[in-house]
Amino acid sequence: MPTPARRDLTNAIDGPAFVLVEPQMGENIGAVARAMWNFGLADLRIVNPRDGWPNPRAVAMASGATALLDAARISTTTVEACQSFSTVYATTARPREMTKAVFTPEAAARDAAERLARGEKVAILFGRERTGLENHDVVLANAIITVPTNPVFPSLNLAQCSLLMAAEFRRASQELSGQAPPDVSYETGDAALAEIEDVERLYAHLEGALTEANYFWPPDKAEPMRSSLRNLLSRTPLTEQDVRMLRGVIRALSETRRRRDDSG
Amino acid sequence: MPTPARRDLTNAIDGPAFVLVEPQMGENIGAVARAMWNFGLADLRIVNPRDGWPNPRAVAMASGATALLDAARISTTTVEACQSFSTVYATTARPREMTKAVFTPEAAARDAAERLARGEKVAILFGRERTGLENHDVVLANAIITVPTNPVFPSLNLAQCSLLMAAEFRRASQELSGQAPPDVSYETGDAALAEIEDVERLYAHLEGALTEANYFWPPDKAEPMRSSLRNLLSRTPLTEQDVRMLRGVIRALSETRRRRDDSG
Repeated sequence: MPTPARRDLTNAIDGPAFVLVEPQMGENIGAVARAMWNFGLADLRIVNPRDGWPNPRAVAMASGATALLDAARISTTTVEACQSFSTVYATTARPREMTKAVFTPEAAARDAAERLARGEKVAILFGRERTGLENHDVVLANAIITVPTNPVFPSLNLAQCSLLMAAEFRRASQELSGQAPPDVSYETGDAALAEIEDVERLYAHLEGALTEANYFWPPDKAEPMRSSLRNLLSRTPLTEQDVRMLRGVIRALSETRRRRDDSG
Repeated sequence: MPTPARRDLTNAIDGPAFVLVEPQMGENIGAVARAMWNFGLADLRIVNPRDGWPNPRAVAMASGATALLDAARISTTTVEACQSFSTVYATTARPREMTKAVFTPEAAARDAAERLARGEKVAILFGRERTGLENHDVVLANAIITVPTNPVFPSLNLAQCSLLMAAEFRRASQELSGQAPPDVSYETGDAALAEIEDVERLYAHLEGALTEANYFWPPDKAEPMRSSLRNLLSRTPLTEQDVRMLRGVIRALSETRRRRDDSG
């Protein structure tokens, strides 16, 4: 699915580099590029890709994110790939018997966003598909990131792990810069929300039609019945258009009843 | 990769059902099962899968999560799949011109976790691979979930979207129950962290060796040099084993120097 901005990385956010250490399948490299670009990250580094570089399978998989592959920097060792960074995180699922801080993805993303905002350069290492990072890669890292997964089925593949980190980083970065989307927003299409006055008129219409239909019975229950109905309308988010629609519904139902009453 | 718990879903957490509406590729259904089970979710529902059911491609892709496929409930319509739930969220990337609350994945996961804790039944709808959910599916939902992605490359595939939602839900659920992992933990392997006393002795050893080597020069800089060294040791998280190792390093370097001095 080509997008107009296909080869344009100007929309990228200032984020961590993702360093893939000896990835085996081109498809996975392409999937990582997509996952990064889905969240606006663009700095991809690859250490010693098994099938050489460039890799047509990576390109095929990356679809709209091929610009990241074009810009990817290739190196032969993890040390070389990491040399311009001051903070490096290693993603790993299993304990390493190393003395090292272990971050959740969320905490690592926050830490990375804060460092980047201070002008530090930050990278995240991702290991080989089958075996993950080797210990000699992990010792280079300042900290470990471990995704809290189901202990009986913990392993995430390369594309999944990079997707989660990219999503976490975008959120952390937007929160830090005050640009995070609201937790809940309200989509109303083109319609404006109805004002209390409109809802009150709708209720009056409904109440009138129901009174005519002898709905409020027995008389001692009439008041709580009215309250419940009015409350239902209040807690329903209604647009002006909904109010018009519901008044049409009331009219239609009342007229059906009247016709039936007339013919009955 | 079979795991010992392969067909055992007893480890599942009480989470939302994931409802796949008319998924086309078996591989994607298998990938969703894996993503769910990576985060301990087990309730999978499928509406009208294009290639029938069971689907061998789904089984091949699900690997250690095939128990979710065995337990999956199949229905012919979205309404039928949703009928036992009181709250349904629809995942969708594009605006729908509908009046409906739009949650971030994080906020939706929190909302879902709170509802589940109150005993409500909750489901999340995921659309077809190419076209997403149809409007007639979205109108059934109480709210929309939209993942905040890069506006120029927003589209996530089915497996990615379900992975993000499963990860968010696990976190929200663990936070609600006070079982969330700490933001940062410390992995020390088997070694205990060194006590201040050990670090102080290490420093004394280093200071002695450096004094002997006339390192603290000129004399008016000696005090700040000592301070910087002591501070470097304090801010480095050291295990007892690290302290022993560093004392060995100091000894080795001092002896090299002594031998050179003797021979020179």
